[in-house]
Amino acid sequence: MLSILIELQRLKNLDRTGWSLRGLPPRTESVAAHSFGVAVTVMLIADELMARGVEIDVERMLRLSVLHDWSEARIGDMPRTAAQYFGSEARKKAELAAFDDIVKGMGGRAATYRELYEEYEHRSSLESRLVKAADVIDLLVQVLALERAGAKGLDEFWEVARQPEFQLEGNANDVVAEILRELLTAREKVFARYE
Amino acid sequence: MLSILIELQRLKNLDRTGWSLRGLPPRTESVAAHSFGVAVTVMLIADELMARGVEIDVERMLRLSVLHDWSEARIGDMPRTAAQYFGSEARKKAELAAFDDIVKGMGGRAATYRELYEEYEHRSSLESRLVKAADVIDLLVQVLALERAGAKGLDEFWEVARQPEFQLEGNANDVVAEILRELLTAREKVFARYE
Amino acid sequence: MLSILIELQRLKNLDRTGWSLRGLPPRTESVAAHSFGVAVTVMLIADELMARGVEIDVERMLRLSVLHDWSEARIGDMPRTAAQYFGSEARKKAELAAFDDIVKGMGGRAATYRELYEEYEHRSSLESRLVKAADVIDLLVQVLALERAGAKGLDEFWEVARQPEFQLEGNANDVVAEILRELLTAREKVFARYE
Amino acid sequence: MLSILIELQRLKNLDRTGWSLRGLPPRTESVAAHSFGVAVTVMLIADELMARGVEIDVERMLRLSVLHDWSEARIGDMPRTAAQYFGSEARKKAELAAFDDIVKGMGGRAATYRELYEEYEHRSSLESRLVKAADVIDLLVQVLALERAGAKGLDEFWEVARQPEFQLEGNANDVVAEILRELLTAREKVFARYE
Amino acid sequence: MLSILIELQRLKNLDRTGWSLRGLPPRTESVAAHSFGVAVTVMLIADELMARGVEIDVERMLRLSVLHDWSEARIGDMPRTAAQYFGSEARKKAELAAFDDIVKGMGGRAATYRELYEEYEHRSSLESRLVKAADVIDLLVQVLALERAGAKGLDEFWEVARQPEFQLEGNANDVVAEILRELLTAREKVFARYE
Amino acid sequence: MLSILIELQRLKNLDRTGWSLRGLPPRTESVAAHSFGVAVTVMLIADELMARGVEIDVERMLRLSVLHDWSEARIGDMPRTAAQYFGSEARKKAELAAFDDIVKGMGGRAATYRELYEEYEHRSSLESRLVKAADVIDLLVQVLALERAGAKGLDEFWEVARQPEFQLEGNANDVVAEILRELLTAREKVFARYE
Repeated sequence: MLSILIELQRLKNLDRTGWSLRGLPPRTESVAAHSFGVAVTVMLIADELMARGVEIDVERMLRLSVLHDWSEARIGDMPRTAAQYFGSEARKKAELAAFDDIVKGMGGRAATYRELYEEYEHRSSLESRLVKAADVIDLLVQVLALERAGAKGLDEFWEVARQPEFQLEGNANDVVAEILRELLTAREKVFARYE
Repeated sequence: MLSILIELQRLKNLDRTGWSLRGLPPRTESVAAHSFGVAVTVMLIADELMARGVEIDVERMLRLSVLHDWSEARIGDMPRTAAQYFGSEARKKAELAAFDDIVKGMGGRAATYRELYEEYEHRSSLESRLVKAADVIDLLVQVLALERAGAKGLDEFWEVARQPEFQLEGNANDVVAEILRELLTAREKVFARYE
Repeated sequence: MLSILIELQRLKNLDRTGWSLRGLPPRTESVAAHSFGVAVTVMLIADELMARGVEIDVERMLRLSVLHDWSEARIGDMPRTAAQYFGSEARKKAELAAFDDIVKGMGGRAATYRELYEEYEHRSSLESRLVKAADVIDLLVQVLALERAGAKGLDEFWEVARQPEFQLEGNANDVVAEILRELLTAREKVFARYE
Repeated sequence: MLSILIELQRLKNLDRTGWSLRGLPPRTESVAAHSFGVAVTVMLIADELMARGVEIDVERMLRLSVLHDWSEARIGDMPRTAAQYFGSEARKKAELAAFDDIVKGMGGRAATYRELYEEYEHRSSLESRLVKAADVIDLLVQVLALERAGAKGLDEFWEVARQPEFQLEGNANDVVAEILRELLTAREKVFARYE
Repeated sequence: MLSILIELQRLKNLDRTGWSLRGLPPRTESVAAHSFGVAVTVMLIADELMARGVEIDVERMLRLSVLHDWSEARIGDMPRTAAQYFGSEARKKAELAAFDDIVKGMGGRAATYRELYEEYEHRSSLESRLVKAADVIDLLVQVLALERAGAKGLDEFWEVARQPEFQLEGNANDVVAEILRELLTAREKVFARYE
Repeated sequence: MLSILIELQRLKNLDRTGWSLRGLPPRTESVAAHSFGVAVTVMLIADELMARGVEIDVERMLRLSVLHDWSEARIGDMPRTAAQYFGSEARKKAELAAFDDIVKGMGGRAATYRELYEEYEHRSSLESRLVKAADVIDLLVQVLALERAGAKGLDEFWEVARQPEFQLEGNANDVVAEILRELLTAREKVFARYE
């Protein structure tokens, strides 16, 4: 078990490429820190949904958020443009192979983790789609925090918030849409204030 | 919900003080990255225990790992020496008050989160004791990674591994003790190799 | 004497938490660098006061500025919010205990340093109140420098400048108030310029 | 012309992933800094070869070293393991497509740059093979510098030096082999000294 | 040859002082990364000029860009104000002496490199004047990138673009002037956008 | 007064070049942090000397330590090799001119500060010689701290400790020599331990 823990330590030391490519200082956000942000968001969203009567597997959501970026320990954090040059199929295949190699020493549990990973990649459950939504929300909260601290040139990220592509319905969609609206409102204030 | 997500972003930007005080470079590890490491460790330990037939609430463990350091968004990451000067009671009280203020906008859920937080602080369940063990294991895996990369002066951390204070029994104790032994073995090799 | 010098080296490597919590990059300012800024400010203020005929113990002021943050080598740089959760009495007590432990190997001089430290903490002399003013002025000059370089989200710091709480009178008050006014004027220009 | 210069600025801000994944601090080496190192090495090797009577196109070599990593502005610096999961063919194809998009606004010159890039990728000339050798030499000089400054855990890089795979002959091979030997000798001294 | 490569590695680790002095984060740009930017700019400018029928020695230009900052490995990156206090003659003399010591182990080639260095310092050829222009252009592209990412307080750099002091004529002047105009236009948009 | 405070803020953001040139991470130590270290050392040495009955002007020593590096806000932190290429006379002259420009807005006090600066540069008093000793001691304590944390390649700094060039006598010499001996002993243990 130790060898997988050691390998995943790398995620603490791996910068999210999106910030580097936009000229932000090193260590603006590590992959590990982002995964933490996703897990927090997942927990809050899940609890809100349950409060609204939606049945949902929170444990599964937390597991998905914890492991959804493991393959980056071997692949690195590919910028969005990179994914486009490789094609999303090739990228998914490579990430899955990396994921398999990371967990292969785990015996029977390797299969369970791989299943979770595939569920996330295919967005094949409400849980996985919500984790994807949390992934985007944590990204935007980070963008908001950076812009409040003075960063510029991050406008393109907000397009995701304006036209989200999550296939969510009912309460799940309501909760996510609400957070996105709040984010957009908060964002407008950032620049309004100094202009 | 947005305001709590914004506040917890701070944990991505907050260095673990232990490294700074020992002369390691800035951003060696953020509090958020550490929390991610704890969540990973928790998941692996929980699954190992379940494979050995132990009944355990994994969701609860993941929730505990995700929220156990939230109060640091207001208190900061106090070095061990600081805790000693304040007294552990005062520190726990302050952290709890900070935690309460962080979650107070969450309505009914605030109480649930607080309960989880207190469970962790009091080690009042097997789950919370295992999360504490994961907290220490992630610390030591980080120390190991740093020492493998050339860091020195971190010896004192290994005392925890030699005389762990977790009150665990049976399988839970076995699994944790095994990882600690593996860690100590791996650690000995680090210095053996260059000497 | 060496052991105290080694311990205080830590202050060079300890980030001022205020910047980290507001999303600024690591190592924006170390505690040691801030203490230097306070000492510079103290020297300039003291000389200005003496030029206006105020009798003042400059050596004492320089000593106070050099040692006023030593306890942070053991306590860390607690964010303002942290102090509030601990209560200012508990915080002062803890800092004093840490200070005592740092200087305790200094024999007879330990008592002298402790006396200076307490003088600062209690603002029991004109000198100590002026060092506190210098502490705030250096903070604001740093904020100004950061804002001129593009940082945002630091507005709250300027409230201190608008309603200073130093209990100063006569010439001492005039000199400090003048610098604060100059700072506020310079600050207004920062945003005026880009708006 | 400006837009390509702006895009390539990103390489100044992009960390070489190899160091991050091995726990070294952020900004240990940017892609741009590495490309500079390759260009320096290329110039010295070319001049040494010419002194030994080898005819070689130095301008071409310098051009190759300047542009051989441009695609990383869109792909990022993929760790070696990543390349293996994508397959070297897929990786080369993606990098070429990225390169094409970067230079496509250059009119007629785009084709010339692409040709140079392909020459490097295919190692289809002595010049391109020597630039590849310089790429490896600069990597190893960086490793040596890091190890001299205290880094550990970089042993695997030295295997390249022991069994180089450059298809070079005669003088070209001699010059490169000589530098590699010097590097290995210098490296042995690093650890000998502290053991 | 190895010892010069080792010494020049230092340029990868040496921050351009201009950014530090203006409050930008550490490692905003290393000297090595800047030299790479100059080499890229040189190549693009040279090719544009050749397309316009200007005969020019591209190899020489690339060599000049690669070696024009080597002396900083011993002198450091002196801020502009420093140069003014030493006088430009003293500075040039010191840099030349440092350059000589760096290359002195290169045998016959030392003289060739020194000649190139002096050509650059004296701007005694069209090639060297164009490399100087590329040096300024890379600086301004970096400033533009920083301002787009949120940096302020860099206005003074743009004065160079408004009143360039390159002694260029005809096509060479046209090409450089065009890039500077494009830069100024792009720069105006940066602040227009957020105001 | 504000403008000088703003200019000296730069010292907080200026890395000591010695560390960068030896491959240590950015922001290992700022000039401001070092000046703080010198001031601390000065205070401890002065108090020790007074305890041994030496009459000494502590205020003067503290002033010298606070202002001895101000010229670096305009000159930068020149590496030792740089000083050698410029000649120590030229360097001193340039630094003095920079110092004059920094303080010139201070009216009558400019002359006083300049006098102090010259006293330090000429080591014309016991106080200034002791501040120089403190300057070296703080450097060595920093080296010791770095080596304890894993840094290597810093051996040359210890030569200063073995053959100090301070022209001190009697008690002053005893106190400084004692600290240097303690430093050398502590240093030997660093490498002994891991070998």
